[in-house]
Amino acid sequence: IVSSAPGTLQQRRQPGAVAVPWGAGPRPRAASSGPQPVVPTRQRYGVRRLPFARLCGSDVAFFERVMPGRVVTDPEELEPFNVDWLKSVRGCSKLMLKPQTTAEVSQALRYCYERNLAVNPQGGNTGLVGGSVPVFDEIILSTALMNRIISFDKVSGILVCQAGCILEKLNEYLEEQGFIMPLDLGAKGTCHIGGNVATNAGGLRLLRYGSLRGTVLGLEVVLADGSPLDCLASLRKDNTGYDLKQLFIGSEGTLGVITAVSILCPQKPKAVNLAFLGCQSFAKVLETFTACRAMLGEILSAYEFMDEKCMELVESHLKLSNPVTGSPFYILIETSGSNSAHDEEKLNNFLEQAMTSGLVTDGTVATDDKKIKAKVLGLIWISLIHQMLWSLRERITEALTHDGYVYKYDISLPVGKLYDLVTDMRARLGQSAKNVVGYGHLGDGNLHLNVTAESYSHSLLDAIEPFVYEWTARYNGSISAEHGLGFKKKQFIQYSKPREAILLMQRFKAMLDPKGILNPYKTLPSSS
Amino acid sequence: IVSSAPGTLQQRRQPGAVAVPWGAGPRPRAASSGPQPVVPTRQRYGVRRLPFARLCGSDVAFFERVMPGRVVTDPEELEPFNVDWLKSVRGCSKLMLKPQTTAEVSQALRYCYERNLAVNPQGGNTGLVGGSVPVFDEIILSTALMNRIISFDKVSGILVCQAGCILEKLNEYLEEQGFIMPLDLGAKGTCHIGGNVATNAGGLRLLRYGSLRGTVLGLEVVLADGSPLDCLASLRKDNTGYDLKQLFIGSEGTLGVITAVSILCPQKPKAVNLAFLGCQSFAKVLETFTACRAMLGEILSAYEFMDEKCMELVESHLKLSNPVTGSPFYILIETSGSNSAHDEEKLNNFLEQAMTSGLVTDGTVATDDKKIKAKVLGLIWISLIHQMLWSLRERITEALTHDGYVYKYDISLPVGKLYDLVTDMRARLGQSAKNVVGYGHLGDGNLHLNVTAESYSHSLLDAIEPFVYEWTARYNGSISAEHGLGFKKKQFIQYSKPREAILLMQRFKAMLDPKGILNPYKTLPSSS
Repeated sequence: IVSSAPGTLQQRRQPGAVAVPWGAGPRPRAASSGPQPVVPTRQRYGVRRLPFARLCGSDVAFFERVMPGRVVTDPEELEPFNVDWLKSVRGCSKLMLKPQTTAEVSQALRYCYERNLAVNPQGGNTGLVGGSVPVFDEIILSTALMNRIISFDKVSGILVCQAGCILEKLNEYLEEQGFIMPLDLGAKGTCHIGGNVATNAGGLRLLRYGSLRGTVLGLEVVLADGSPLDCLASLRKDNTGYDLKQLFIGSEGTLGVITAVSILCPQKPKAVNLAFLGCQSFAKVLETFTACRAMLGEILSAYEFMDEKCMELVESHLKLSNPVTGSPFYILIETSGSNSAHDEEKLNNFLEQAMTSGLVTDGTVATDDKKIKAKVLGLIWISLIHQMLWSLRERITEALTHDGYVYKYDISLPVGKLYDLVTDMRARLGQSAKNVVGYGHLGDGNLHLNVTAESYSHSLLDAIEPFVYEWTARYNGSISAEHGLGFKKKQFIQYSKPREAILLMQRFKAMLDPKGILNPYKTLPSSS
Repeated sequence: IVSSAPGTLQQRRQPGAVAVPWGAGPRPRAASSGPQPVVPTRQRYGVRRLPFARLCGSDVAFFERVMPGRVVTDPEELEPFNVDWLKSVRGCSKLMLKPQTTAEVSQALRYCYERNLAVNPQGGNTGLVGGSVPVFDEIILSTALMNRIISFDKVSGILVCQAGCILEKLNEYLEEQGFIMPLDLGAKGTCHIGGNVATNAGGLRLLRYGSLRGTVLGLEVVLADGSPLDCLASLRKDNTGYDLKQLFIGSEGTLGVITAVSILCPQKPKAVNLAFLGCQSFAKVLETFTACRAMLGEILSAYEFMDEKCMELVESHLKLSNPVTGSPFYILIETSGSNSAHDEEKLNNFLEQAMTSGLVTDGTVATDDKKIKAKVLGLIWISLIHQMLWSLRERITEALTHDGYVYKYDISLPVGKLYDLVTDMRARLGQSAKNVVGYGHLGDGNLHLNVTAESYSHSLLDAIEPFVYEWTARYNGSISAEHGLGFKKKQFIQYSKPREAILLMQRFKAMLDPKGILNPYKTLPSSS
């Protein structure tokens, strides 16, 4: 074992590296789409504009009075906010507003509501399902200038901040005080906490710290008609009436604009260890998870898996070297705890048991202890720091984009069924696909299924869809585990939600936004 | 240190002891109210019956056809279901239904909705705010016979069960498989998981495992008009549309009847340790919490505090002996972890630091290691098993009932302000109160404020209320941290929620239950 310096999750990423949203990377078209213009969404998808009002000069003048100097109408300046991060969808908004306060958001929305102007709330624009950019000419309401930290209580660990704070900045602020954000994702350098909450972002730390539904303690929201709703409590417990804020978490800006967030932050772990292991079957990956959870218990903070195809792609396309070879499956385990000696002992005990009982056949660890160890358990531990081990997992999506056109799916399933979808898909597609790979957050039951081919083909797409959604529905899985529905997946919601649930969602939408001005064309299929 | 046997939280309670809901005990009137009848709610509170239909013979006949032999009309048999656990409110229902399936619940509600018959959903009837019994003649819809475990997945730890499963039974079932329920409360032997979810129960394990908003993964609910809503997902991640189930968590049966629950269960800890410590000031209690959280980190599972008045009452009324005396404040710390040697070492390191730096002045620990130790850190560790240590905290409410009439408040506050309310109240009431005591879940920012007097007095009540609510509101606290609003606190909701939030709640209620038949007179003030 050659140990790395103690590091937090974000330190393992190279400074200056492009932020790659966790579990998804740029599609080949995006990667190579330098001068090539992105096809407007309305053209590619043949969607029809709803009868909202059209922006006129007096509207712009009004907004200039409300937030002078923070009203963007220059087409060139608007360009990056009209196109999504994947460069897969494009709107044609002619106006972006950059409010600094909740009062300004409220004034802007009240005006839009009265005028029947559609609005596209936007955070860091790192969404992967086309939810964060306009479809037509919706006004972009950006939280970019709402980036003030309101308070942090070191006793309770509760942070209150405006919605436009960048996740990474918040984490840096907290680390200085011995805390971290309860969520972490590849897009952290760009994404806004308000957008994270609006999309119920999952990410790396979910296995350990749970979902935003538990850690978000309060929200301040402005409703479609401009009325502010103050549910910005900073309390771990509050059972006074219905928990309204939950409806806005994960509603993708369609029910209200989140302007401030109160969130419970865990302490910064003092020790972080990694192990990268090889397994002979997916059944052993599952067994290892059970053993690992039992022996690592409270310090387990990540349990990621990837198949050998993933590793081949990472090796061939990115020239990364896999320290553990010859296994059909690989596991990346992370521990985060308060005592490095204890954590390392737990990890070593687990590894010994996993090797002895044949659950894993080979492995590498990178621990915090700054000492160099040699052979343990008959294994040759190879010098790898955390960052390098994490790269093997994190850069799979990047490697995939070099393999050709990628069909990407973000599925959640009962954990025992997780890999069967990959096997079934591989058998189904046979030679028509170049590669069918599976990896993901096993600890969360979240599979990233990716199919590559030399180029886009309609017949291959037809072979994949709706098969992949039907398969997922058969095992009561979710067709969007963490990415949301946005614009691109809203028509598939019925594979994961029963009709009566969708109808009820539409009633909530109609009640909270009767004119439908907030992020139209997103999340829900149209009610007609 | 004389160590106790390893024990789970529930093992520390004496078998056969009366289940006392955590943080609340029977009022003196309840304790002594053997033959004395409880005053009907409609009389005591002067509330008026809403114009629901009245039950007739053909209704009973209908229900008998739907669930033969499970329709209760005998007044004597109905009695315990018309009166709450505290014996503080009483309804006069003439009918209780005991469905076994969701289809039966659906049929019953559809009928009630058409007939305009009001319904009182009831689980274990352990609520503390009058939410679980009828106010007038509402039909009691009991989940008592909906007690089937549907599935448990040992890999993911996800349990799916019917709403009427008793919390303790579920925990016993899980313990056999190496798991526990993510919540624990004094009423566990009686309360139903459906009721726990409907009231968003907090309890003992919240500090460690988070709230039900994060651990409940899915719900099956029957709406007021009888339509079933299947949101019974068993997935840790699912971002397909709005999270409808959240609206039913904590809605106290006013928006729908929960018929099944999917919940994420943590592993059973292998080691549980306790420490009972004395502190010289509340400031030190807070400092100790910060130090404790830093050093115990991921194994900290409870941090309870109580003032010396609490201990005096426990000693004088219950003859319990406090092993640590002479301090104005006491702390009970519990650790739960996967490695007893590690946990004990962490606890000892923390205790050493806490003693050395003067944060705590005295203390006792009960660890799992089954060895007898003598003096450590110059302290004399006294032989006490977990159960005895926990009794000092858990039986405070019982001790209070022996002190006279008790005015009880369940408040959440920013943790730094927690005890100021007790100090201010004590100063305000002076000689007019017998005792003013404070204790609670410090780790959760949850204070149980109790005022005792020889007997009930209207003038003392006027001195306490609305002062206590105004004080709480001033510091953005919650006037009901974990007990909910039910019947008895609904008129105080405005102290914790702004007007626009209450109006929105009323709109949700009107949308989901337009006739208002579900648990009327509860949770929300009437909209007129």
